[in-house]
Amino acid sequence: MQSPARKQPRVIIVGAGFGGLEAAKKLACEDVSLTVIDRTNYHLFQPLLYQVATAALSPADIAAPVRAILSKCKNVEVILAEVQSVDVEGKKVRTQDQIFEYDYLILATGARHSYFAHNEWEKLAPGLKSLEDAVELRRRILLAFEFAEKTTDEAARKAAMNFVIIGGGPTGVEMAGAIAEISRYTLAKDFRHIDPSQAKVILIEGALRLLAAYPEDLSESARKQLTELGVQVRTNARVTDISEAGVQADGEFIPCRVKIWAAGNNASFVGTTLDAPADRVGRVIVNDDLTIPGHPEVQVIGDLANFSHQTGEPLPGVSPVAMQQGRHAARNILRMIRGDKPRPFHYFDKGSMATIGRNKAVADLKFFHLSGFPAWLAWLFVHIIFLVGFRNRLLVLIQWAWAYLTFDKGARLITRNFQSEHRPPA
Amino acid sequence: MQSPARKQPRVIIVGAGFGGLEAAKKLACEDVSLTVIDRTNYHLFQPLLYQVATAALSPADIAAPVRAILSKCKNVEVILAEVQSVDVEGKKVRTQDQIFEYDYLILATGARHSYFAHNEWEKLAPGLKSLEDAVELRRRILLAFEFAEKTTDEAARKAAMNFVIIGGGPTGVEMAGAIAEISRYTLAKDFRHIDPSQAKVILIEGALRLLAAYPEDLSESARKQLTELGVQVRTNARVTDISEAGVQADGEFIPCRVKIWAAGNNASFVGTTLDAPADRVGRVIVNDDLTIPGHPEVQVIGDLANFSHQTGEPLPGVSPVAMQQGRHAARNILRMIRGDKPRPFHYFDKGSMATIGRNKAVADLKFFHLSGFPAWLAWLFVHIIFLVGFRNRLLVLIQWAWAYLTFDKGARLITRNFQSEHRPPA
Repeated sequence: MQSPARKQPRVIIVGAGFGGLEAAKKLACEDVSLTVIDRTNYHLFQPLLYQVATAALSPADIAAPVRAILSKCKNVEVILAEVQSVDVEGKKVRTQDQIFEYDYLILATGARHSYFAHNEWEKLAPGLKSLEDAVELRRRILLAFEFAEKTTDEAARKAAMNFVIIGGGPTGVEMAGAIAEISRYTLAKDFRHIDPSQAKVILIEGALRLLAAYPEDLSESARKQLTELGVQVRTNARVTDISEAGVQADGEFIPCRVKIWAAGNNASFVGTTLDAPADRVGRVIVNDDLTIPGHPEVQVIGDLANFSHQTGEPLPGVSPVAMQQGRHAARNILRMIRGDKPRPFHYFDKGSMATIGRNKAVADLKFFHLSGFPAWLAWLFVHIIFLVGFRNRLLVLIQWAWAYLTFDKGARLITRNFQSEHRPPA
Repeated sequence: MQSPARKQPRVIIVGAGFGGLEAAKKLACEDVSLTVIDRTNYHLFQPLLYQVATAALSPADIAAPVRAILSKCKNVEVILAEVQSVDVEGKKVRTQDQIFEYDYLILATGARHSYFAHNEWEKLAPGLKSLEDAVELRRRILLAFEFAEKTTDEAARKAAMNFVIIGGGPTGVEMAGAIAEISRYTLAKDFRHIDPSQAKVILIEGALRLLAAYPEDLSESARKQLTELGVQVRTNARVTDISEAGVQADGEFIPCRVKIWAAGNNASFVGTTLDAPADRVGRVIVNDDLTIPGHPEVQVIGDLANFSHQTGEPLPGVSPVAMQQGRHAARNILRMIRGDKPRPFHYFDKGSMATIGRNKAVADLKFFHLSGFPAWLAWLFVHIIFLVGFRNRLLVLIQWAWAYLTFDKGARLITRNFQSEHRPPA
């Protein structure tokens, strides 16, 4: 299954997220035999996943086929498979049914939600990492309103109109804002027995403030903007139990049908097969050149890596870190092939931003902080620019413009699984 | 659960397809209390479903939320539920958990695939009626190419590159053309170990010609245009068995991974609960005013109805029939409320068209027949015009224009069910 190689060094990249894809683009058309392995056939623009979950965009708007992105260069092979383990001594990567040998490896398998010691919460409160997650959350959110419209049980109706989001990082803030918006604007006139604008969106954060990675003034601004939208923000609150019926937070039980998990991440399990030191959430602790101890041919990047050489703290799990690391890892491989030494990685932090709703956002641009409308404009601009593919940009732009002008969100579909479709009950 | 009625006549419409939705639009804002019940929350533009199955469009592009379409008129209530049965004597409609009373009923629950006596074929060869079907078929088609790229088993690779479509009506013809096109154009450069343009698309039809409902010259033209695209057309061929491994057609076994069912329809089971005469595929045999014998307050329309008063033959199961019947049924209800007699239905046949691929189509416009590019233009025009919602029209138009200019199809996502996502194998 190896590419036809005239002794080209074999490079494998596992994961076609922001880090893996950037590395692949840098190595495509270079004099290497490149294999990109991902368990999906698309690159996902994760920062907009919450817009799929809240019916503003379609899955295909924020996903682009990896094959198509990399098809121009004949030295690239794309494999749809899930990597099970890496054999660093034997320089092999193992999938369910195949083994691939490498000379250089870039591991970029990212992270998944962590429910701490409560994996049973996963089905009750899905997180938001994949397109499947997003479509499932969209289904649950829209179904809650449908249920509230139909039921005659007052308590059940109230619970259906409560939306609890656990975790006040960017994903939690964005989901809370987006749900508040569709209930207040998009769905406002669609029902007869309920008033969707009475929906209660409750955002629970364990720390003392939202957006803990942002400067304090922006955390405060985010809280204010969310409150304006009608979101109840509860900081310094700990979730102790989740059940079908609701969420227990500190002393209080909040009855709710829809619970959304945005609280914690665990690094992908593939990292554990490297036999390299890892931190408490499973991230691989990398050297300053992104390699792992004793294996200069293995680099780990993105959400899977714990890189603490710059500030003493691990770099955050955001796309700019992953992209810069991806490009750096690719360059280091080209250096090593030429016989040069790999260079240490340096993250250039251009800031970060989170959107809260229409005309509402926060942006930490390092030299200055933005809130409200200017932050929201900056957010729009950056997210359109970085979307992969002209077609996707155009489609997303049109749907945003449409939603902005009409308060309408177009992707309000409640879809089921293929298996659960089929024949009606006899 | 009744709407607040000041003795307004209660009208129930079951099904928000082409027929039900047209009826609902006519009755919305009239002096009736209208309840629309559908088991999905969207109206689906079924004629473009094959474009979702072949990765040209996203589900949300061809679906519009029923609530939003009907939200302007306060006399309309929309219920997301699956109707189990109708009690024509008691004038009641029963869903899983509720009972609704009516004064007038329009039943428009449509049809589903029929596998004749072979329900076990359904999982092996899915049909194309719902968004779930379309996403599942897209998954299977794209996965077949991925599998062919990876496997080292020559026979398995060959089977993965064979696509068998059973049934040469419009859906079968459109699917065959679309799969041939993506393999020859869209995917052509994306793989390293296979040549997607070598994919074999085989269209099997039991009758002597394709598109049996069309004039003979157009059937012949469709066959020619499909053959130009590389599709193998086999007419007068009967499928006798379907298994994981392939399809048995007459004497020959065709090994294939992907099988698609486009052969037969059965009317929705709800019709059987009416206690009215039905034909052999379960369609309710209606009077010339669309009512059922003995119940002038019950009208049956669209794919669920067998209306044979015009030509002696049942009208075909196409959207113009359903839409005209929907409007007629609504008008008849308003007539009856005024104390007038319902009028007989007359179908005004403007013709029909099927697309085969880029610049390829057939159109039977009654006074003249079109083939190739002019037919294809006519098809584009009509399908854009009839799409519900300006937003959908714009998005579909842009994606078609993009696909036409670049040969690219944007929605090439292999998605899984939420349940099968989750944790990787330990």
